[in-house]
Amino acid sequence: MKSIETLIEEMRSGSRRALARLISQVENETPDGQHALKLLYPHTGNAATVGITGAPGTGKSSLVNTMTKELRRRDKTVAVVAVDPTSPFSGGAVLGDRFRMNDLAGDKGVFIRSMATRGNLGGLARATFDVVRVLDAAGFDYVLIETVGAGQSEVDIAKAAQTTVVVEAPGLGDDIQAIKAGILEIADIIVVNKADRPGVKNTVRALRAMLDLGHRQKMVAHHGQLMLMQDGPDTEPEYDFWRVPIIQTIAVEDDGIAKVIDKIEEHGEHLRETGMDSDRERLRLETELVDRLQDALLRDLLDKTGPDELEALLQQIINREVDPASAVRQLVSAS
Amino acid sequence: MKSIETLIEEMRSGSRRALARLISQVENETPDGQHALKLLYPHTGNAATVGITGAPGTGKSSLVNTMTKELRRRDKTVAVVAVDPTSPFSGGAVLGDRFRMNDLAGDKGVFIRSMATRGNLGGLARATFDVVRVLDAAGFDYVLIETVGAGQSEVDIAKAAQTTVVVEAPGLGDDIQAIKAGILEIADIIVVNKADRPGVKNTVRALRAMLDLGHRQKMVAHHGQLMLMQDGPDTEPEYDFWRVPIIQTIAVEDDGIAKVIDKIEEHGEHLRETGMDSDRERLRLETELVDRLQDALLRDLLDKTGPDELEALLQQIINREVDPASAVRQLVSAS
Repeated sequence: MKSIETLIEEMRSGSRRALARLISQVENETPDGQHALKLLYPHTGNAATVGITGAPGTGKSSLVNTMTKELRRRDKTVAVVAVDPTSPFSGGAVLGDRFRMNDLAGDKGVFIRSMATRGNLGGLARATFDVVRVLDAAGFDYVLIETVGAGQSEVDIAKAAQTTVVVEAPGLGDDIQAIKAGILEIADIIVVNKADRPGVKNTVRALRAMLDLGHRQKMVAHHGQLMLMQDGPDTEPEYDFWRVPIIQTIAVEDDGIAKVIDKIEEHGEHLRETGMDSDRERLRLETELVDRLQDALLRDLLDKTGPDELEALLQQIINREVDPASAVRQLVSAS
Repeated sequence: MKSIETLIEEMRSGSRRALARLISQVENETPDGQHALKLLYPHTGNAATVGITGAPGTGKSSLVNTMTKELRRRDKTVAVVAVDPTSPFSGGAVLGDRFRMNDLAGDKGVFIRSMATRGNLGGLARATFDVVRVLDAAGFDYVLIETVGAGQSEVDIAKAAQTTVVVEAPGLGDDIQAIKAGILEIADIIVVNKADRPGVKNTVRALRAMLDLGHRQKMVAHHGQLMLMQDGPDTEPEYDFWRVPIIQTIAVEDDGIAKVIDKIEEHGEHLRETGMDSDRERLRLETELVDRLQDALLRDLLDKTGPDELEALLQQIINREVDPASAVRQLVSAS
């Protein structure tokens, strides 16, 4: 069995096999995986990370495939993390998607990894961040994080990237289904895919209207808590410079994809020029630190008290023998 | 200054003044407030709690007002907690809403309280739960919790009630704006208000289609974590008995309101008959316990380490000198 140090050396020299093994260690949260993350962390922060999220039926996976090809034409190396149980990369693909994936399979400049579902979504988010770090340290120019924008936590994963692309499509459930879970608020770029479908003009107009309505919310850090703040006259002006573009694409015909990549590059430059890249990174890392800390503290407490004691206390709360706040004080002071 | 015990006695004898003072203590998390919650907790669990949430423009506040009047006609006492900075109850009302509120102001069987925004949304949720407990212990038959369904945390507040009513309206932003933040998934009852507006048939049809599409997610408890689980053939069948009704109302004309109240009562009976009321309460209390515990543990740690140390550690993470997981281990083992 090779040491972690050897695997890291091989990975950084371009071994895909070593990369895959390191990712497995990290995903499974083994001690070796934890050690690898520690050693790799100083080498992170160079990749451009792009979150791509959207409801099922928007053709998101095809879009990610054609985006990858366009980036390859521009001589960029690309890693794709697919956080989606119905993604083509995890085997649930229709034949066409599989074919497109196979297109890329022989290319040394592309690496594709699907993420299995964890016991809980918070765990999935942490595991995704860790896998993205490994790919970043492996030297990929771009890391694309593909998620299904169905639940809040998947959205959280997508918005943890430097640039977030939200994918919509015309005619999904009377135009309403695609827009949910506060998904528009996190978009840096909106892609309306399947733009050859009827109703595309309505979809674009509705999206533009929603963006212009000023209902955008933004993440701000406040006493170590991530908050959603309504956009408005009182909001810090530097967060308002970027006008979210709406780009029409037909991914299966490679139509409009170059423009998406142009806009992603432009957004990256915008972040660097305004210094917002550091602001966003600080916010991201602060949120992650608080989240990991709360998780670790809870685990630590559960290790000390045991699930039986917690269950007994919950039963007392249900029976109205003790109130939740007193129960918590009791647990915390005993630990 | 009266003792908490005296205030509680007066509150339980019907004093609105004592009730208001107790709520203020609880809201401000004073030691007296904490003590009050402890003493009141055994008297809770009797009120029917109804969460009412929806986007701005759905006429939600008018609906809550007319629902309150209908409940009064049925000889029920009603407390309203309005968690909404733009709510009529907090003074941001248009004249018509104010008038309707004043309608109720002289009625001893009604109590209205608006909740001020906390430093963070998690804090607002906890404060809301505590205020609802005080109103429950005060003996109100119904506690209506009105929130704007804009952010995830406001939705969390609404779904913490026994019965959750989601309010929609025709023609909001091309029919798409009203449906966001996973809001349909939490609905026990959907109200389409302003049903005299054009497009109401489309709105109802679209809502029914979305409900029937099987995209409903449900909360389940799993190892002390609240998870969203996709509804489907593998889902526990007892969660599927309740068919979510869509009720058309014109709140300003008191049209359809009696039917809403009928359905709320029916849903309450359904919960009791299926035993789901205990399941839901266990889940609610378990979630609240874990949430309060994480908050208390984090506060406890921050008290011990101080914000400077945390800030210094965050800076080390940003500088790539230490990775987030190692930073967390360092903090937790030092505490």
